[in-house]
Amino acid sequence: MATKTLNVGMIGYGFMGRAHSNAYKQVGQFFPGDYRVVLKAICARDEAKAKAFAEQWGYESFETDWRKLIARPDIDVIDICTPNNLHKEIAIAAAKAGKMILCEKPLAMNTPEGVEMTEAVEKAGVANMVWYNYRRIPAVTLAKRLIEEGRLGRVFHYRAKFLQDWTIKADLPQGGQGLWRLDVAAAGSGVSGDLLAHCIDTAVWLNGAMSSVCCMTETFVKERMHTLTGKVEAVGIDDACIFMGKFANGSLANFESTRYARGHKAQYTFEINGEDMSISWDLHDLHRLSIYDYKDESKLRGWRSIHVTDNSPDHPYMANWWVPGLAIGYDSSFTHQVADFLMGLETGKPQGPTFRDALETQQILDCILASAKTRQWVDVPKT
Amino acid sequence: MATKTLNVGMIGYGFMGRAHSNAYKQVGQFFPGDYRVVLKAICARDEAKAKAFAEQWGYESFETDWRKLIARPDIDVIDICTPNNLHKEIAIAAAKAGKMILCEKPLAMNTPEGVEMTEAVEKAGVANMVWYNYRRIPAVTLAKRLIEEGRLGRVFHYRAKFLQDWTIKADLPQGGQGLWRLDVAAAGSGVSGDLLAHCIDTAVWLNGAMSSVCCMTETFVKERMHTLTGKVEAVGIDDACIFMGKFANGSLANFESTRYARGHKAQYTFEINGEDMSISWDLHDLHRLSIYDYKDESKLRGWRSIHVTDNSPDHPYMANWWVPGLAIGYDSSFTHQVADFLMGLETGKPQGPTFRDALETQQILDCILASAKTRQWVDVPKT
Amino acid sequence: MATKTLNVGMIGYGFMGRAHSNAYKQVGQFFPGDYRVVLKAICARDEAKAKAFAEQWGYESFETDWRKLIARPDIDVIDICTPNNLHKEIAIAAAKAGKMILCEKPLAMNTPEGVEMTEAVEKAGVANMVWYNYRRIPAVTLAKRLIEEGRLGRVFHYRAKFLQDWTIKADLPQGGQGLWRLDVAAAGSGVSGDLLAHCIDTAVWLNGAMSSVCCMTETFVKERMHTLTGKVEAVGIDDACIFMGKFANGSLANFESTRYARGHKAQYTFEINGEDMSISWDLHDLHRLSIYDYKDESKLRGWRSIHVTDNSPDHPYMANWWVPGLAIGYDSSFTHQVADFLMGLETGKPQGPTFRDALETQQILDCILASAKTRQWVDVPKT
Amino acid sequence: MATKTLNVGMIGYGFMGRAHSNAYKQVGQFFPGDYRVVLKAICARDEAKAKAFAEQWGYESFETDWRKLIARPDIDVIDICTPNNLHKEIAIAAAKAGKMILCEKPLAMNTPEGVEMTEAVEKAGVANMVWYNYRRIPAVTLAKRLIEEGRLGRVFHYRAKFLQDWTIKADLPQGGQGLWRLDVAAAGSGVSGDLLAHCIDTAVWLNGAMSSVCCMTETFVKERMHTLTGKVEAVGIDDACIFMGKFANGSLANFESTRYARGHKAQYTFEINGEDMSISWDLHDLHRLSIYDYKDESKLRGWRSIHVTDNSPDHPYMANWWVPGLAIGYDSSFTHQVADFLMGLETGKPQGPTFRDALETQQILDCILASAKTRQWVDVPKT
Repeated sequence: MATKTLNVGMIGYGFMGRAHSNAYKQVGQFFPGDYRVVLKAICARDEAKAKAFAEQWGYESFETDWRKLIARPDIDVIDICTPNNLHKEIAIAAAKAGKMILCEKPLAMNTPEGVEMTEAVEKAGVANMVWYNYRRIPAVTLAKRLIEEGRLGRVFHYRAKFLQDWTIKADLPQGGQGLWRLDVAAAGSGVSGDLLAHCIDTAVWLNGAMSSVCCMTETFVKERMHTLTGKVEAVGIDDACIFMGKFANGSLANFESTRYARGHKAQYTFEINGEDMSISWDLHDLHRLSIYDYKDESKLRGWRSIHVTDNSPDHPYMANWWVPGLAIGYDSSFTHQVADFLMGLETGKPQGPTFRDALETQQILDCILASAKTRQWVDVPKT
Repeated sequence: MATKTLNVGMIGYGFMGRAHSNAYKQVGQFFPGDYRVVLKAICARDEAKAKAFAEQWGYESFETDWRKLIARPDIDVIDICTPNNLHKEIAIAAAKAGKMILCEKPLAMNTPEGVEMTEAVEKAGVANMVWYNYRRIPAVTLAKRLIEEGRLGRVFHYRAKFLQDWTIKADLPQGGQGLWRLDVAAAGSGVSGDLLAHCIDTAVWLNGAMSSVCCMTETFVKERMHTLTGKVEAVGIDDACIFMGKFANGSLANFESTRYARGHKAQYTFEINGEDMSISWDLHDLHRLSIYDYKDESKLRGWRSIHVTDNSPDHPYMANWWVPGLAIGYDSSFTHQVADFLMGLETGKPQGPTFRDALETQQILDCILASAKTRQWVDVPKT
Repeated sequence: MATKTLNVGMIGYGFMGRAHSNAYKQVGQFFPGDYRVVLKAICARDEAKAKAFAEQWGYESFETDWRKLIARPDIDVIDICTPNNLHKEIAIAAAKAGKMILCEKPLAMNTPEGVEMTEAVEKAGVANMVWYNYRRIPAVTLAKRLIEEGRLGRVFHYRAKFLQDWTIKADLPQGGQGLWRLDVAAAGSGVSGDLLAHCIDTAVWLNGAMSSVCCMTETFVKERMHTLTGKVEAVGIDDACIFMGKFANGSLANFESTRYARGHKAQYTFEINGEDMSISWDLHDLHRLSIYDYKDESKLRGWRSIHVTDNSPDHPYMANWWVPGLAIGYDSSFTHQVADFLMGLETGKPQGPTFRDALETQQILDCILASAKTRQWVDVPKT
Repeated sequence: MATKTLNVGMIGYGFMGRAHSNAYKQVGQFFPGDYRVVLKAICARDEAKAKAFAEQWGYESFETDWRKLIARPDIDVIDICTPNNLHKEIAIAAAKAGKMILCEKPLAMNTPEGVEMTEAVEKAGVANMVWYNYRRIPAVTLAKRLIEEGRLGRVFHYRAKFLQDWTIKADLPQGGQGLWRLDVAAAGSGVSGDLLAHCIDTAVWLNGAMSSVCCMTETFVKERMHTLTGKVEAVGIDDACIFMGKFANGSLANFESTRYARGHKAQYTFEINGEDMSISWDLHDLHRLSIYDYKDESKLRGWRSIHVTDNSPDHPYMANWWVPGLAIGYDSSFTHQVADFLMGLETGKPQGPTFRDALETQQILDCILASAKTRQWVDVPKT
């Protein structure tokens, strides 16, 4: 039984606020351990909204000033679910206050911010993690295991896409709740920071460091009404972003993201081509992993769709859920992340992605945006 | 905000006990309404297990005797998650005590039991529902809407399968926790009551009453060790069950279930062929619905895979979850069922499947088993 | 190089006449052997059509009376592509004249006819074959090999469907060119003889004899204009046919065919569930075979889609075509059948399905139709 | 009936020689017109092979010197199936001799060669075509029609890949029959000219001119035994090639080809994302076209798989083949190309891709290779 408590103070209450809260509530039932997570406080500027969220989700209290939240001695961990432009200030303040930190991705607006944040948490010695949740979709974690077992042999290609279509409408405004992702001031970048950041985090985790990149970006809709100013303003984000490059292991990278791919809601896919095995995955069918094993008997070789739902140690995390064949949802990836975070506290072995891990992704993001601007190849600095 | 409470007393703590508990915990966050669900008590014969489950899942108390649970005045609804052979006695006692009842499927061991139970709840005037949860997978609910909108035209065929492979091993025992489904004394039947019951419930809901059936069953493994007696005993359940038949609307039925279909973990599929539209669904990819619309322009006709994940009223239940493209899991179907049950209480309009609805499925189950025994066609009595 | 010739005389010039002719023309290029096939004569009642077909397809001559064709000494093999009601008379006459015979499926209108025909060819000692072409789709032949290698273990289930949707329109007439399949006088039966015959031939070939069946049929559109009489007449064929049954090896059969499954053009599928391996195939993607191998490492088990297009002995017939990944079409199955027929002549080892092989399918067809009529189970006589 | 003849003289007898010959033999049966194609002569340096090919495929004669073939007055059209380094010389000689020319792709070793060839055929006024056969896969032609009908609206993205895995083995030699594609002296380039050429031809046809590109190439295996010299020699071709770019219509390009993508035999795919419709296709399932139509009713939107096999004008070329649902193979694309070429002769309206059309693809190929070399963006000259 849980003998310790972990008091959470969450800042922000949007899409991610809900996803994290659900995870905090589920983790004790599906992944019971030493720690019991307590939803201590939610923080949002709008008092009515903060209060309503607290009641709906079972937070014991609410705050409207994140500095007050950080100052509270009854809070163990700060969960940052704000727009990207607030990550740095909050994270550094929380670190200084000795709080553990769970920060939404991307880590920061840019690498210098990320460096400051990373140094702050490391100096403070506080547990820290970034919500690159896709690592913990069971199918993706299974891919990681196959790679660690050395099944792929020499890797030739890594391909990733994250395709959406929700911003095609030119009359969609930018800025404000739910739409801050279109506002460069709040988001820092467009699909690169929002979507490719996920692709890069997974890629670096699965295939190692990137050494060089060459990128192009495009903003298809040049101006949008801004909900905060009430005026039509230039769009500063990248609507689409394609880059190619090289990994340190010699394999070639082909990455693309857009919010203008009609018909794709959130199609995050990756494919890795190794000498001995290829692997692919698609978020639209997140419970499946596809592999092609060259070591199969030649006449029987083919792409195999693994329904990653066995309630056994064969399939990561799944022994804690239902019975074979019954898929879990997107939301479970957050539950798994909390479970691993708690396991890291129990064992003293921090689970990634830490701020430092996320800094590598941040650096690649900066490189691709620099490449798009200069129309030149850019070498990724070693971390 | 929730102004009323609904105190749940659950009997049983297995696979379904966990699925229901998760739903009770999620419903207030994702489908907030007038009622707040309180996990009041869990009941199981083994005190240690009951206590542990209560602690892990947050039940306020536990009982080891279901009669005591029913007698408690602080319990509003009894949730029956026991093996099938206990449904009747518990349900009737609960009805007499004026409790609402949520009963696992199949309703009963056979039709006469089901009739008794149905009469008991109707006489008592208590809200009642049976956990045929697949109706509330968003893709399946969307199929129902399309049918209600009259899009299919005359229906020619209804096909359903529920294929598993987990009992192929001859050394798997029967009886006891998790394996009572193989013990005819506890389960009443094999794949027919466990799996085809789901297929029939969905079919009657989507396509109306069945008029006649002709069935065959098979028990591939004739004897299994019984965990309760410690002896090898004859297997009394059906390992596989195929039936054909007719619906009242003139369409033909082809149903099959087995636990010996190597490679299928829980492949529940149905397909309906109408004059103007065909629809199909597969539990292995539960977030998708496939349709073929004959009214499409002829050169563009094809099977369409709808990713039923839009957070809009277009896609049932999904407006309450995440953003487009992010799939929810099997477990959400229970959350939806609780949400609808509560909505039924609020509005005074009972939501199905009620005991009476489930009785129709029970009757068809009895008819197919009778047909398998007599090797004759059997007419389904009108309900 | 080819040193012998095989002179073909074909009766009929419809869909099958074209498919066979294409095969005769291709076989020498893709499967060169001792025999050179010569398109000697085409026979059709309508002189203009016979002549036009001969010119278009390169037949050296034409006839309008099949008896004359059979009487010609320069004809080695008679290819019967007529409606089913003419098979018997032609085949027996051809056998008596000492001609080899390639006969379209189903072999006959019923078993007694089939027996007469089989006895005639066997008495005459002439090479004979029936055009159950699907055996020779490379993916299907690969399935056969896997079964012969004993990879499936004990077989539990065999499932087959052949779904079409082209007769849903009630104003489609019956009878005449292209529509004789709707006229019971010419076709003998509906989907059973036209479509299920294929499914049964494959099944018996892959899974052995059937021992008992129970069947239902339906005629959805009761009357159609008859193009020969000009009157609306009762429809005598089965529009849909479902049967279940048992194979001699103890596995269960579930077969279905219909021409009222909106959205399916020619969806012939089969699936076999063995203890160690399951196999499935779909004519709509005929170049793929799906397998699930239980002997795969447990965490990597999944359905595998084999793209049966390697130009190597691994993939039947494919070494004679293109390069890996390039699919061949439906028509190639006929080319393969001719190639195998010629190989049978060369080696003296007749290749199936012979008339006798096809007789077994005919017998099962008779049993299912009898079962549908009597609404009783029917035992399949041993052949 | 055919009243004119077209005498073909083919140079080369490899993979493409067989594919073209099959097309010449099929066209009269499936697409009868004014012209009858006569296989007049095959030309190959090796007399024995030339003779054997002529006998197997029914060529009336053979030559061992292509200049003699061109000089023959009984030859109407020269079909060039040689390695790329011979295209120019042969084509120019054939043009000067007044022969029509069908030339394998890519048109030439580079743009200057292509210009010479194009000017030669245009000056000579002879009919000319390049075998970019994928345009005439019915699903691809259907995509073209949808685009011409304006269904896509503004186009945002065009993505294409051509993935193979046949050269991963480091001990595969370069040069010689079947392996000249690995020898830069014979092929000019690697996957760019062999595979991306197809992708570019389709792209320009479907989406218009490209304006700028940025490319990277890689040679994974640096040295291979050369079958002609018997020595291990440096590999001069590109094993993999990725490029991004812009089309004149403002859409973004992402192209990739490799022969090191384990598990993909010949996976040519493209996807186009338009404001109103997206389209995708995959050579591995060449008979299907996938579309997403934003104009569909919102709740029913989804990717639709069109089985492009209706024997009606709805589906290009298919009215001349079989019945709905029965797929044709890769080889049919050549038959269609010959049919269209003959139709061009009949109507006097040349059918593309002409040499001039293919020159545009050649120019883009040169640009991407230049970009890969300089690691700079390259503007594509206007043609």
